[in-house]
Amino acid sequence: MERKDVSKSVLKRLPVYLSYLRSLPENGTPYISATALANALGMGEVQVRKDLALVSDGGRPKIGYFRESLIEDISQFLGYDNTTDAILVGAGKLGQALLGYGGFEAYGLNILAAFDVNPAPTETQDEKPILPMEELEAFCRTNQILMGIITVPAQYAQQVCDRLIACGIKAIWNFAPIHLDVPDNILVQHENMATSLAVLSMHLQVQIKDKK
Amino acid sequence: MERKDVSKSVLKRLPVYLSYLRSLPENGTPYISATALANALGMGEVQVRKDLALVSDGGRPKIGYFRESLIEDISQFLGYDNTTDAILVGAGKLGQALLGYGGFEAYGLNILAAFDVNPAPTETQDEKPILPMEELEAFCRTNQILMGIITVPAQYAQQVCDRLIACGIKAIWNFAPIHLDVPDNILVQHENMATSLAVLSMHLQVQIKDKK
Repeated sequence: MERKDVSKSVLKRLPVYLSYLRSLPENGTPYISATALANALGMGEVQVRKDLALVSDGGRPKIGYFRESLIEDISQFLGYDNTTDAILVGAGKLGQALLGYGGFEAYGLNILAAFDVNPAPTETQDEKPILPMEELEAFCRTNQILMGIITVPAQYAQQVCDRLIACGIKAIWNFAPIHLDVPDNILVQHENMATSLAVLSMHLQVQIKDKK
Repeated sequence: MERKDVSKSVLKRLPVYLSYLRSLPENGTPYISATALANALGMGEVQVRKDLALVSDGGRPKIGYFRESLIEDISQFLGYDNTTDAILVGAGKLGQALLGYGGFEAYGLNILAAFDVNPAPTETQDEKPILPMEELEAFCRTNQILMGIITVPAQYAQQVCDRLIACGIKAIWNFAPIHLDVPDNILVQHENMATSLAVLSMHLQVQIKDKK
């Protein structure tokens, strides 16, 4: 299907459909309708119908979509089927948790290696390597890396970001709690866990105070 | 200091200051000014000055803040010093990564246990337990848990959410890629990694297409 411009809210809903479709039992019915999907997820039927029509032309009246094809169409639309190789900079606790997570492959993300000022020798062949920062440039060029994940402390994030861009990286997933300045053609996606925790913790403090 | 209402953008900046202050060498100068902080982080001096005045009254003209006190004041303001006990539901790969992360303690979050339909026996004493779902209610009541982390697949998230609220939980950190319906007094903080990956991956597809 031809790619159309797509809003961020559609991009938020598509992974929800995909996650649900993937979770259905393999020996269940091979077809699923927009109505069934909408009901299962508690979402509006019209919206689900529109979203599915945007990514797949496999819908049949009164039958719905062939589930396997719909999974393929959504995955392809989201780019989950062309695997993106990425590297991660900052192998602290969060970096290592992401490196070892292993669940990103379902979303087309393959983290090849981490880089850190304190590299660590790998103990098993399955483990992903934590390499010294000096090898960053050569590694990115050799492997034509387009995506970088930043998990260094906030005050080092901008310099790491600049270095990644110089290595040819076009998309940055930033876990450091700081705004990054980048040229227009580079996309930064922020994932600010410290802020999330601050918001949640602030809410609990107010709740507890109200009770007293 | 008396708590004032605080905007979400301040809540985003405070963890940045804290992360920087904590990273400074212990044997360095004991004082830091708003100007020095602003310069180090590439942020506006006026903004930094205002933010710090909001959370601490320890600033001295021409000297700045005593670093240790400022760290304490920001931590206290963000609620990082009163540790919040939390539980996590859904011990899949992401859930286990968060459970084993260990870096949340610096932000006042202490995950006591995970719950899953497939509980796992713990192998060491240090490991946090993965308990059966049937024990959720009793555990939350006994330990007066106020925060829950949801890492189940999207289609189970709402029912887990309802169950957590019935257990007395007031703040939910949701990693499932789906909107949750909750009463007004409950706060949900969304952390949607699948969406982040879709946005990044979409950007790379457009970039590659433009090159061709």
